[in-house]
Amino acid sequence: MTNSPAPPSGFRDFPPPAQALRLRAIETITRVYSSFGFAPIGTSCVEDLHVLQNKGGGENEKLIFKILKRGDKLDLAQGPAELADLGLRFDLTLPLARFYSRHQGILPHPFKALQIGPVWRAERAQKGRYREFVQCDADILGSEHWSCEVEVAQAMVAALTAAGLEPPTVLFNDRRLLTALLDRAGIPAPTRSAAFIALDKLDKTSPEAVFGELETSVGVGPAKILRESVLSTEPDPRLLAQACPEAARGLDHILGALRGLFGAPERFRLAPSLVRGFDYYTGPVFELRAAGLSGSIGGGGRYDGLTGQFAGKAVGACGGSIGFERLMLLLEERSAARPAGPDVVVTVFAEELRARSWEAAAALRRAGLSADVYPGHKGLGAQFKYADSKGAAYAAVIGPDEAAAGKVKLKELATGSERLVAADGLAEALRRKP
Amino acid sequence: MTNSPAPPSGFRDFPPPAQALRLRAIETITRVYSSFGFAPIGTSCVEDLHVLQNKGGGENEKLIFKILKRGDKLDLAQGPAELADLGLRFDLTLPLARFYSRHQGILPHPFKALQIGPVWRAERAQKGRYREFVQCDADILGSEHWSCEVEVAQAMVAALTAAGLEPPTVLFNDRRLLTALLDRAGIPAPTRSAAFIALDKLDKTSPEAVFGELETSVGVGPAKILRESVLSTEPDPRLLAQACPEAARGLDHILGALRGLFGAPERFRLAPSLVRGFDYYTGPVFELRAAGLSGSIGGGGRYDGLTGQFAGKAVGACGGSIGFERLMLLLEERSAARPAGPDVVVTVFAEELRARSWEAAAALRRAGLSADVYPGHKGLGAQFKYADSKGAAYAAVIGPDEAAAGKVKLKELATGSERLVAADGLAEALRRKP
Repeated sequence: MTNSPAPPSGFRDFPPPAQALRLRAIETITRVYSSFGFAPIGTSCVEDLHVLQNKGGGENEKLIFKILKRGDKLDLAQGPAELADLGLRFDLTLPLARFYSRHQGILPHPFKALQIGPVWRAERAQKGRYREFVQCDADILGSEHWSCEVEVAQAMVAALTAAGLEPPTVLFNDRRLLTALLDRAGIPAPTRSAAFIALDKLDKTSPEAVFGELETSVGVGPAKILRESVLSTEPDPRLLAQACPEAARGLDHILGALRGLFGAPERFRLAPSLVRGFDYYTGPVFELRAAGLSGSIGGGGRYDGLTGQFAGKAVGACGGSIGFERLMLLLEERSAARPAGPDVVVTVFAEELRARSWEAAAALRRAGLSADVYPGHKGLGAQFKYADSKGAAYAAVIGPDEAAAGKVKLKELATGSERLVAADGLAEALRRKP
Repeated sequence: MTNSPAPPSGFRDFPPPAQALRLRAIETITRVYSSFGFAPIGTSCVEDLHVLQNKGGGENEKLIFKILKRGDKLDLAQGPAELADLGLRFDLTLPLARFYSRHQGILPHPFKALQIGPVWRAERAQKGRYREFVQCDADILGSEHWSCEVEVAQAMVAALTAAGLEPPTVLFNDRRLLTALLDRAGIPAPTRSAAFIALDKLDKTSPEAVFGELETSVGVGPAKILRESVLSTEPDPRLLAQACPEAARGLDHILGALRGLFGAPERFRLAPSLVRGFDYYTGPVFELRAAGLSGSIGGGGRYDGLTGQFAGKAVGACGGSIGFERLMLLLEERSAARPAGPDVVVTVFAEELRARSWEAAAALRRAGLSADVYPGHKGLGAQFKYADSKGAAYAAVIGPDEAAAGKVKLKELATGSERLVAADGLAEALRRKP
């Protein structure tokens, strides 16, 4: 039977130029996070299903890819709820909380963790929404201090900038402040989520449209109060301080520190309307916005106590996640489609000269260069074409004349120009890129 | 409900020292493979189940983690075979074949691919055998030439050596040669797999034990012939050349080239007994052996035609896989348990001096160093302990006196010795490691 060569719907493959770009971005983010003292950890991609389903009914629980039980454990008579025992993780935060509870005793305190890896969600497949995607998380566990938010946001801004973006804008809010403002507007707890849903659309639609939806969902009076407080682009600091003094003070500290560190006050803003749709946030939340992208390029917040669902004790925790696939969208627009190929493709002139080509390539690698020896036995024309398709700048030819004279013919692929260089000067010649 | 903080049985987490070692090994292998012109690709972790099950009944098919159908598609009335539609990949070769069939038109020809990522097998969990593990593959697709085997084996030896191992030994055989030798011993095709199974135990037991098993499974006469041919440590080259001239010639070329390239003939050997237990191999197969490890640290072979099961045309293909988890076992034995921490932890002397510490750290990062600012608000003693647990060599203190004088106090954590350095000379002082 012949199978389709496409991956399943919502899943993707990455040919070399795209994959090289992804690896480079991951390497940059890892390097920048490490430079802030975040230490890399790895967690399993697969979790016990009851761990994934124990979080309190968030939306992502509905999107778990469940893994069928195996062998005798699979018993259809037990009904649909008993078919699966494992699941693919839908984020990196829950595995981190589990990891921290388990390893707390051997970890630094507080613990700054960096985790990059794939996560899975059984979303309805659609353009720009994938069922397998990469998350890049930085978290600090074991501290309730506001400086953690500064560290995480600072590292995220630095990582995105190092990856090639214009410096992003960071919006901060506090879950407690937002709740207090809703309270003051006379919106009772049961109606809160309707207000959250309306406010969450602010980055996709106009403030007026959101106001209209609020009028319908929470009533004309409360909506009007929210327009002056939550929806205001210049919210009155006294109002915020009255609504939730602790949250307002924390946000003052965080924003003040970030503005000072980056010397760019306009890029760090208080946004009382910011929601961030995770149930586990307990304090400050934030979101990063990049030029050329509607919606956010990353975000995070404080989730004190999440570790409490495992055997360890509940601790203060705060973290942020870069929207890696959105970052790649922006980087792909900017990057050349041409792959960053090897420094040179060493051709094989004839079977009896193949060893000469191999030896020349090995010497180049010892000198720190990348050298691809043509695999197979085609004519030079096909080999030059191969070198070009690999994105190499040069092809090297070692024919009988060159071999006898201790020389190598170097062909610049873009121009077709050729020159002879001494075999032992090849590495140096290649370092002078065309 | 309180959940266990352990990952599911057979799955693992990696705290910072282990994860850092893993990332470093992956980075080394990627760099070395790239220096040979292998280009990175990525394939999805999840495949359509019928793709995974279409390979011809290998052992790994029984070990697929199957993903439950979702929503209306899940119908228990259709029976156990219809519960799942997707599965986790059990190796990287099948996804590569699918990938190549799909993208052939835009790839260089031949195509040298490098792929590193997790794979999953529902093995019975036991020590040293995991259900989620990393594979590191290098493959050349689109060529039937013996030079591909040389390239792949050469790159694997170079990668393992660069990762820190003693140069491994490489054993080569050819699936066609082994079959021909079994034919000559009078072992018919139906009995072949019994002989394969016996021979495959050679690296775990003695030649005499294998001979004994062969006497039982294929008969005394054939076993005796195999002892002179397949089991011989110095097989007669004429015998091999007679049994399968094409395979013997290919192995001569491959081994000759590798011996010449590495200048170490004893490390590249013909092993007519080598089996490699994958159904899809069609020609040369090989295995890498590392000192201090029974069994192999990697292996591979030629699998012409595997791409034919997808829409694309069947092509020549050859590849090898490093046993990443076995490599990590060897590297962990050698590496210090102490994590490679940041260059310095900048302590926070008091709340009003926190910004000074942040600014000092930011300046160090701009100078290319890693600097961790203590998150939270504990006394200096706790902060020094934190710095030590992170594996940092130094802690920096900026108190009111230091701040006023434009100085930083640098504490060497191993000795406890302290000295004052000028704030703008801090990066330079840190570069001189203790």
